[in-house]
Amino acid sequence: MKAEECELLVIGGGPGGYTAAMRAAGEGVRTILVERGPMGGTCLNRGCLPTKALLEDTLTIAGVRRAAFLKGDLKINRARILERKDALVRESVAGITQSVLEKGVRILEGKASFCGAKRVALTPAEGDPLEIQARHVIIATGSRPEYGPGLRVDNERILDTDGALALKTIPRSIAVVGAGNRGVEFACMYANLGARVTLVEREKRILPREHRWISGRYRQTLALRRTNVMTRTEVVAAEPLPGGGVRLSLPAGDGGDGRLEVDQVLLTGSRRPSFEGLSLEAAGLFPREGRLEHNEAMETRQAGVFVVGDAAGPPYLAHKAIAQAVRVVDHILGRFAPPGPPVIANCVYGDPEVGSVGMKDYEAKKDGRTVVLGEYYFARNGRAGSMGKDEGLVLLVGDGETGKTLGMHVMGPSATELIGLGVLAMENGLTLEDLQRTILPHMTLSEAVYEAAQTARVGDVR
Amino acid sequence: MKAEECELLVIGGGPGGYTAAMRAAGEGVRTILVERGPMGGTCLNRGCLPTKALLEDTLTIAGVRRAAFLKGDLKINRARILERKDALVRESVAGITQSVLEKGVRILEGKASFCGAKRVALTPAEGDPLEIQARHVIIATGSRPEYGPGLRVDNERILDTDGALALKTIPRSIAVVGAGNRGVEFACMYANLGARVTLVEREKRILPREHRWISGRYRQTLALRRTNVMTRTEVVAAEPLPGGGVRLSLPAGDGGDGRLEVDQVLLTGSRRPSFEGLSLEAAGLFPREGRLEHNEAMETRQAGVFVVGDAAGPPYLAHKAIAQAVRVVDHILGRFAPPGPPVIANCVYGDPEVGSVGMKDYEAKKDGRTVVLGEYYFARNGRAGSMGKDEGLVLLVGDGETGKTLGMHVMGPSATELIGLGVLAMENGLTLEDLQRTILPHMTLSEAVYEAAQTARVGDVR
Repeated sequence: MKAEECELLVIGGGPGGYTAAMRAAGEGVRTILVERGPMGGTCLNRGCLPTKALLEDTLTIAGVRRAAFLKGDLKINRARILERKDALVRESVAGITQSVLEKGVRILEGKASFCGAKRVALTPAEGDPLEIQARHVIIATGSRPEYGPGLRVDNERILDTDGALALKTIPRSIAVVGAGNRGVEFACMYANLGARVTLVEREKRILPREHRWISGRYRQTLALRRTNVMTRTEVVAAEPLPGGGVRLSLPAGDGGDGRLEVDQVLLTGSRRPSFEGLSLEAAGLFPREGRLEHNEAMETRQAGVFVVGDAAGPPYLAHKAIAQAVRVVDHILGRFAPPGPPVIANCVYGDPEVGSVGMKDYEAKKDGRTVVLGEYYFARNGRAGSMGKDEGLVLLVGDGETGKTLGMHVMGPSATELIGLGVLAMENGLTLEDLQRTILPHMTLSEAVYEAAQTARVGDVR
Repeated sequence: MKAEECELLVIGGGPGGYTAAMRAAGEGVRTILVERGPMGGTCLNRGCLPTKALLEDTLTIAGVRRAAFLKGDLKINRARILERKDALVRESVAGITQSVLEKGVRILEGKASFCGAKRVALTPAEGDPLEIQARHVIIATGSRPEYGPGLRVDNERILDTDGALALKTIPRSIAVVGAGNRGVEFACMYANLGARVTLVEREKRILPREHRWISGRYRQTLALRRTNVMTRTEVVAAEPLPGGGVRLSLPAGDGGDGRLEVDQVLLTGSRRPSFEGLSLEAAGLFPREGRLEHNEAMETRQAGVFVVGDAAGPPYLAHKAIAQAVRVVDHILGRFAPPGPPVIANCVYGDPEVGSVGMKDYEAKKDGRTVVLGEYYFARNGRAGSMGKDEGLVLLVGDGETGKTLGMHVMGPSATELIGLGVLAMENGLTLEDLQRTILPHMTLSEAVYEAAQTARVGDVR
């Protein structure tokens, strides 16, 4: 077998992998990146990017429908929506590939499989296999979705997110199973396209990771958009019907009669780290319950072998992967690492959006802290009014003693952008008083953050 | 004459006035606010709010026009656009009035006129005049536009911004005179409505307060939107033509033959502090070149008499008024004031937007500093791509020695929201390294700020 050597071998070309490779190569580290498919991973090819592209186009459609000042008949050209999405993915993949190459990374296409602690066999689609010996290895192989045993994806009527992104037809009715970030985003997308949407969630509330108030308000907002929400409801089976459509069995539930018939069903599944074909055991690595153990520097039990991104477990967020990749490379380069993990936000796109970071007030209290809470509603924000999008609120959580910002939770227009203010504040240890003093410009949505800070008084402990 | 006493008298109910009154009354200060028109000042009634409402609706129209996946005929119902705008203004004025009253401020309607240092006569629209004696007075009387001598507004064909907001007709062609914030915003609005727009600016570039690169790029973007831009061009006269339309005389200019004929012309004018009918001299105050002198606490030469907002001179920005109002009330309450003026951003709405704060790199260099520059283009930002709005860039300016963030300049989607990150960073003395370490969520526009920070290396001095 042909052999190669390098200082850093990165397995996987998603956000974690390409960030690590680019950062290392940029510092002169001889780096090889192995990827079996197109660069960009789930995020660029089958996740964030195409989802947002579709969602944005459907928001334009919803905007027209809502605009009382526009009258006339508009036809949706489904093919054009898909064309734009596919072109965007193609261009982004080409762009990131070029950026990675420009940094001096060698990209090798093929399947990687460990054959030693830091030795990997690469089987390319064409040509001879290759063995790569590296000083450091980063596993950035991402994650894959898992579904319940009674649920089999056919991507005709029973879809996974790949099938939803292919949008072969616009269903008249669809059940979206799972009301986490992806479920809510696709529910909004289908509702904007005019489908009758039922969103089904096993937990007792939608967006279970978000603040309780926001989960509740978001549910109300979906109801206003004629999206039906069922919580505490498990979908145990989905069965295609002879005449078309799908019948779902929902034995548990807070409503309904245990049956639901729809044109299509979208399964969002649960994600799990993916090490398919990697032969981790050859590197002396044995995942426990699907997870690889690692320390704070993301180093596995095998010295010099690191794991980042979805492969390292939840949260399954591209920017978490990026953050971990930066940490690992800095560690390899012997650079100072800031103490503790970086501050990571969660984002839900859709209409409206949700952005959140840090603790909820009730979590902070449970943690034994005194808590101050600031809140402001977009109904009183002029910019939101001008956009005709004044649902939602900003919640700021601070420590009653130190004043430090502990969390920020936003539901509303551009919440995924506004949350950056919370991330910046928390990562840099800013207090609510620092936020109170910061004059965010008028008239912007960000003023709602300023106003929320004004309502919080350190000392007024809840 | 009936007499009243109070601790704080605020003259003017715009953002500066109502912020001061609410903050003071919230602390138990007996406060009277005098306003001759509806609450909210220029900003709510004739400025920011109605402009953004119109602009947003026209952005929806432009979005439909741009969307290749939507086909069909849409008619614009001008009356409905105006209805929404007027309703929004009405509700916002009612909302702010209620908030001011809830804080315990007494609102008196009428015209104020000094009759002593801290004595003001109030002439209400109905009923008897009143004399108010106050311990502190805040002048928050706003500003008014001024036009050249050859330019007379008729609000039929020669419009001021009030006339533009009334939108009696959608002109086939319009010249917008002045390419500052307002001029650019109205130019975008008219272009979105389908008018042929010529934007005329006296200075050598549009948006003269913005970074030179952004002025240049914005001009290119306007050209792509078929907006004609003329710089170094003064409009000395506008003359209605007998058959309809207006003829402009443009003796100076970087193009054209000194004549321009259009359906309508919009004059954006230059703003000046407005003290109309105030009889400042009775308070011992004498403006110099239209401005009232004041110290850092915004106190005029007359002890206990303060001036805030537009009345205090440029920049004519509502959030500057809010910041000054907060400072004045804190000063009156004997609270600690942070040293130096607060960090104030500038925002241009339109398509795309511009947000900027602090120094440009070339200003910082002129100031004798070593400068580091970070830059990132939205063409490489996935979220911008998903929105189909990938024009523009983020520029970050840092001090080459201390690393401190000195400025941020953004042109692009939601630039007016993103600039909040720059304001928060600068107000709290954060460095570019602090920004580099802050993981802004994927995939958002705010990532462009993160990426711009990554490209800046303290030490790599330009």
